[in-house]
Amino acid sequence: MNDMTVGQAGVSIDEVRAAHARIAPHIHRTPVIHSRLLDERAGCEVHFKCENLQKIGAFKARGALNAVLGLDDSTAALGVATHSSGNHGAALAMAAGVRDIPAHIVMPANAPAVKKAAVAAYGGHIIECEPTLQAREATLETVIAEHGSHVVHPYDDLRVIAGQGTTALELLEQLEAIDIIVIPVSGSELLNGMATALKALKPAVEVMAAEPAGADDAFRSFGLGYRVPQESPNTIADGLLTSLGERNYAIIRERVDTMVTVEDSTIIEAMKLQWTRLKTVVEPSGAVTFAALLEHPERFRGRRVACVISGGNVDLERLPW
Amino acid sequence: MNDMTVGQAGVSIDEVRAAHARIAPHIHRTPVIHSRLLDERAGCEVHFKCENLQKIGAFKARGALNAVLGLDDSTAALGVATHSSGNHGAALAMAAGVRDIPAHIVMPANAPAVKKAAVAAYGGHIIECEPTLQAREATLETVIAEHGSHVVHPYDDLRVIAGQGTTALELLEQLEAIDIIVIPVSGSELLNGMATALKALKPAVEVMAAEPAGADDAFRSFGLGYRVPQESPNTIADGLLTSLGERNYAIIRERVDTMVTVEDSTIIEAMKLQWTRLKTVVEPSGAVTFAALLEHPERFRGRRVACVISGGNVDLERLPW
Repeated sequence: MNDMTVGQAGVSIDEVRAAHARIAPHIHRTPVIHSRLLDERAGCEVHFKCENLQKIGAFKARGALNAVLGLDDSTAALGVATHSSGNHGAALAMAAGVRDIPAHIVMPANAPAVKKAAVAAYGGHIIECEPTLQAREATLETVIAEHGSHVVHPYDDLRVIAGQGTTALELLEQLEAIDIIVIPVSGSELLNGMATALKALKPAVEVMAAEPAGADDAFRSFGLGYRVPQESPNTIADGLLTSLGERNYAIIRERVDTMVTVEDSTIIEAMKLQWTRLKTVVEPSGAVTFAALLEHPERFRGRRVACVISGGNVDLERLPW
Repeated sequence: MNDMTVGQAGVSIDEVRAAHARIAPHIHRTPVIHSRLLDERAGCEVHFKCENLQKIGAFKARGALNAVLGLDDSTAALGVATHSSGNHGAALAMAAGVRDIPAHIVMPANAPAVKKAAVAAYGGHIIECEPTLQAREATLETVIAEHGSHVVHPYDDLRVIAGQGTTALELLEQLEAIDIIVIPVSGSELLNGMATALKALKPAVEVMAAEPAGADDAFRSFGLGYRVPQESPNTIADGLLTSLGERNYAIIRERVDTMVTVEDSTIIEAMKLQWTRLKTVVEPSGAVTFAALLEHPERFRGRRVACVISGGNVDLERLPW
């Protein structure tokens, strides 16, 4: 039986540590970078954890590897599967390649060519479908029926949550002192996993989530006290369109301290500053965290801040400015 | 008397070493990065020395710092001056700031706003002039007459040549084995300085210069055996429009092994691959070296290659594609 979820509420710091031990030989320990000019612009000391330099160009490599490397041999032999229009598909294909097992990636027919090319480059087997959630899920069921593949959900999976949380373990080793960490939120397994590790190891650090104003279901849910779905998202941050996952919502209420939204115009400003000053290519979803500093400077004044740059996969032919 | 040149033919490895000792506390030891996917694309093992991550976003910081830090106090007190439409102006302003002395930068009135902003951000004093070489030189003479400033020429200056050569010292420490190093050529002090260090320390390494086909005076001079000036350059590599300097020409004939040209379309292809695969922002002049691998793959097959990424200062509103 393949189930897109796993039957527990959250992960523990021990699971995050076990994930890091498992995936460390296969991921990049991404650098933390800094720029005096961006400090001046932001009015605080800000350091960037560069998951845009991670394998496949995004943190998603961590969770997919943790899920795939933890499978027993007989399960793994049947391969893995998911539906994805973005980085998770490439991450799962890459992880399957490490273990030399098949990866079946259901993608909407209208997914960007660069995303399909990335999945194919890592040896993933692409199955196209209509661009609706129903079609994606039905097509995935067909794949499972045919191959017996094991499903790895992009965010509602404890192994994936633990894997993404390893980003926080590295960050705490790389930065000695830190007052506040800003993390992007979408399906929210990165936020969940990192918040879990941070609250276990450094409870005094403020964990802040940043979300595009045009896809602010997490922000609204956080304030309302119950989960509201994201309908008709409208933002350039194409990696942050997903609704907050159910299991992630509960953990986030418990372990995240604050949440802010940012306008798309600020996301573009943040991207340009990061491209020109840090010389590093950041995708819109990855620039949301620095955008939080630009749009809400009073929250950061005089503090030591870490921003997660979650990814750097952009189509240079279709830049958002 | 301020003279734009210094009365010797070339620099020695000892001068390059002395330059590195002098500037090391003030520059970044830039990383050398690598991508399996780009190896596959190029058909060889290729490593990139990231001078786009240098202070001011280009290697020019090295030479300017070496010149400024080596001045005696009474000369330095009067400040430094140059004419520049590009990175050398920002580099000299930055170097002068390190020593807390004035920098007068003569810039053509039509220089890009981003270049002027960079000079101003480092505290340089900008004097605008008509966009002709005659106007630039005459305006610089006026500045010298008024302030007694010491002139630092962008490429025809031994202190600058020795400073740029320090890039090679780091590269040889960072990469254990290397067969061929590709360096961009324009005024050519980077090529001269690096070739000097490389031939002194690792004479078996092939030193190759790469130049845009639309500004190929160095290539033609190299083949002809005498220096021909660059007239009407036509390339997107705006950092490589200058003619090969006289003193650099003689050294290059002696210490550079091979030279290739690349088309602008290949430079754009190289830029896009570096932006998307390495996630690092490279300017057209900086992509010329990787373009050499793409356009002349047979010269590199099976070899271990180092490419210098000379800079990363681009105007995101005016990308060349």
